[in-house]
Amino acid sequence: MSELDYDTILKGIKPSKQEHEEVMKLSGDLVNVINDTASELGVEVEAALVGSVSKGTWLSGNADIDILMKFPLDTSTKLLKKYGLEIGHETIKKMEGAAEERYASHPYVTGYINDYYIDFVPCYDIKSYKELKSAVDRTLLHTKYIQANLTPKQEDEVVLLKKFMESVGTYGSEFKVGGFSGYLCELMILEYGSFKETIQNAALNWKYGHTIDLMNYQTGGNFKDPLVAVDPVDPNRNVAAALTLQKMSEFVVAAVNFHQEPNESYFKQKTHEMDEEILKELFNNRKTKTVLITFKPPNIPADAVYPQIKKTEHSIVRMVESEGFEVFGSASWTDEINEAVMLIEFEVWELPVLKKHLGPKIWIREHQKRFLDKYPDNAWIEEDRWVVGVPREYTQVLTLLSDLMSGKKSGYLQFGKHLKNRIMADHQILDVKNILDSQSNTSGFIKFLYEYLHPGDKIFR
Amino acid sequence: MSELDYDTILKGIKPSKQEHEEVMKLSGDLVNVINDTASELGVEVEAALVGSVSKGTWLSGNADIDILMKFPLDTSTKLLKKYGLEIGHETIKKMEGAAEERYASHPYVTGYINDYYIDFVPCYDIKSYKELKSAVDRTLLHTKYIQANLTPKQEDEVVLLKKFMESVGTYGSEFKVGGFSGYLCELMILEYGSFKETIQNAALNWKYGHTIDLMNYQTGGNFKDPLVAVDPVDPNRNVAAALTLQKMSEFVVAAVNFHQEPNESYFKQKTHEMDEEILKELFNNRKTKTVLITFKPPNIPADAVYPQIKKTEHSIVRMVESEGFEVFGSASWTDEINEAVMLIEFEVWELPVLKKHLGPKIWIREHQKRFLDKYPDNAWIEEDRWVVGVPREYTQVLTLLSDLMSGKKSGYLQFGKHLKNRIMADHQILDVKNILDSQSNTSGFIKFLYEYLHPGDKIFR
Repeated sequence: MSELDYDTILKGIKPSKQEHEEVMKLSGDLVNVINDTASELGVEVEAALVGSVSKGTWLSGNADIDILMKFPLDTSTKLLKKYGLEIGHETIKKMEGAAEERYASHPYVTGYINDYYIDFVPCYDIKSYKELKSAVDRTLLHTKYIQANLTPKQEDEVVLLKKFMESVGTYGSEFKVGGFSGYLCELMILEYGSFKETIQNAALNWKYGHTIDLMNYQTGGNFKDPLVAVDPVDPNRNVAAALTLQKMSEFVVAAVNFHQEPNESYFKQKTHEMDEEILKELFNNRKTKTVLITFKPPNIPADAVYPQIKKTEHSIVRMVESEGFEVFGSASWTDEINEAVMLIEFEVWELPVLKKHLGPKIWIREHQKRFLDKYPDNAWIEEDRWVVGVPREYTQVLTLLSDLMSGKKSGYLQFGKHLKNRIMADHQILDVKNILDSQSNTSGFIKFLYEYLHPGDKIFR
Repeated sequence: MSELDYDTILKGIKPSKQEHEEVMKLSGDLVNVINDTASELGVEVEAALVGSVSKGTWLSGNADIDILMKFPLDTSTKLLKKYGLEIGHETIKKMEGAAEERYASHPYVTGYINDYYIDFVPCYDIKSYKELKSAVDRTLLHTKYIQANLTPKQEDEVVLLKKFMESVGTYGSEFKVGGFSGYLCELMILEYGSFKETIQNAALNWKYGHTIDLMNYQTGGNFKDPLVAVDPVDPNRNVAAALTLQKMSEFVVAAVNFHQEPNESYFKQKTHEMDEEILKELFNNRKTKTVLITFKPPNIPADAVYPQIKKTEHSIVRMVESEGFEVFGSASWTDEINEAVMLIEFEVWELPVLKKHLGPKIWIREHQKRFLDKYPDNAWIEEDRWVVGVPREYTQVLTLLSDLMSGKKSGYLQFGKHLKNRIMADHQILDVKNILDSQSNTSGFIKFLYEYLHPGDKIFR
């Protein structure tokens, strides 16, 4: 690896002095307001800044301020929920922000204050994973561990790694991405010391099942995941459990590429000139048939929507392939509000009327009788098995898709739970070329199509 | 099984008194002429009538007269061949017939005399399989065994069984059919006693690997064939070795059908009104694409031609399927002289330009480098494997077939030995509809197409 000017790169991606001061000032104010509000209400609560802001590892412009409200362990869940929401709302009101309730382990309130989004999340004030009551509580331990172990120099290394991950498309543990969480990035820097060492290790040494175990708990063998990072604050948890094999592989290959030829462009989003005409030509040249099923996504949290769309997409692919239509590729996308899309690209989308149906072996006379009663015409023998030519239920994949989506042939399809009724009530099945003709597509949708057509694009520079 | 009038059926299929006398008279004359000719030449040879004529089990109009010329065991192979041909030719000359030389274990001569075909085959005069010098010698032992054990009543039972087999398409051990030999039919009658008992046993009791062992040699376990009939004159030979699983299954099912509903029609060839227009409509309705590869068969014995055509047909099917084209069915046919045909019916005959090509797993960094050097563009990752979209070599199956048959892409195809040069020099690749349009097809070819479209036809009445 030749040397890049990391200081210059960091200047572009680290929060400016002004942003840093602004965020820290706001965070400090919020902690004080919460503590004051709790006192006024006579509730024993202490606010704690957690997450990337508290650890100095956030990317410029990405400061999501997370504040935990720590309740004593003997607080009832009911009171924790009640006061958690009450203090959150009261704080946002005092800070003249806008509030919205959300749900993770408990209900909590998010505030939009001075152009920042702030989560106010109630938790129990635990000292060890053994006292854990909900997943949120663990965040407290993570923050303490990183604050105690990450050096200021290493904070910059985390920022470099996160930005690299973001550019190559592997950052974020939410289901939409299935990539590396911020905490996992921090543990990687603690394990290897620096961004460069992390890249070098991933590029040269990582294999399927690679294990990071900073506290030497030796519990890594309990996990079957592609990457194992034993949580320093909980030996029974794999921090990389949500990382898909796909994203781990993409990161390893991006690391190989970067290691061979380090380049500043790995810290920037790749952008492309892309419009409907270019996309249409690309799809045309493949001589495949690409069909889009579009519908309005259900109003549920993003982390629930993505797996449901994926599940539906995969079930459709299995279904149409079992009917004889060959799928070249598939993908799905949603803006989480108005549009959801499942894309299926076919190698074979028309089939002849006749289909071979295998029957019993001829030796089992009873089965043979039943088979021939059912198919009195046109049965024949291949080796020692009965075969019959039956009319194919669907000769056109578009008809099959239409019947699947409208429920005429729904018994076999596994819809995501919240998708079934919504798709059946309203959806469209369109050829990608017709959609591209309409010229009224959102940039997010255009980007989705571009990325489908260029799947390896982000990891090469 | 209700009772059929088997006497009446037999009247239609057994040789008439006149045919019987004519054949026996001719056979007797031939034996005498051979013995006289041998004496004149001073050669120690004795003629013996063998085969179905000698056993009284031939079907009316099907009398192939087989005469063995038995030489003493100490005769040299050279002299046996020399005198075998010499006596054969001389006998045919004396009988004013036409001669043609052929080849089985030894060269031999076939004569056409008084409208009958007669084989004059030299052999050694063996008393036991232990003295066996060539496959022909065994025929002598078979004939003796059947003559010694089959009763006159059972001769009729053999005739019924042979005719039944012929009508349902399972008679004949030559490669063209792969069915039951005459000798095997005779052994079945000896085993079960009568035609009816044979049908009943096949219908109700036969399984894969069923064994007939008239002499209780208990050597059946040595054979892996679908049906085992230990040769009464040679414990190390399975008389049913040439019977295919296909034909055994067809016979069993025909037996089941006949057993459920005995019917005189099982002793007659099924005939069908069939012409080009009807066939064209049948092919049209399937909405498949049926392609015929036609060529002139090589001038080699029929038993060599059929396996070579089958082998080539199967190799083509495997080849086109490996390129992504789905085959619904295939078959082949030849008149053994002028026409040979391989038929392939496609479910999918056109494919898009793009094809997925799987590369190495990403973990093997060395392989990855080689793969990416080879495919620098458009490679991507699926899970932890490299994938690349490459242009398909063939998007039209007709182009692929053309290149295969002309040798442009021959390395992969396994042609039958004598077919390769012949096909490459001259062949046609045509859609079945175009061939049917020509209206100049032979009845054998039309029958072949009919049977391809009605594969279970003969075993149901």
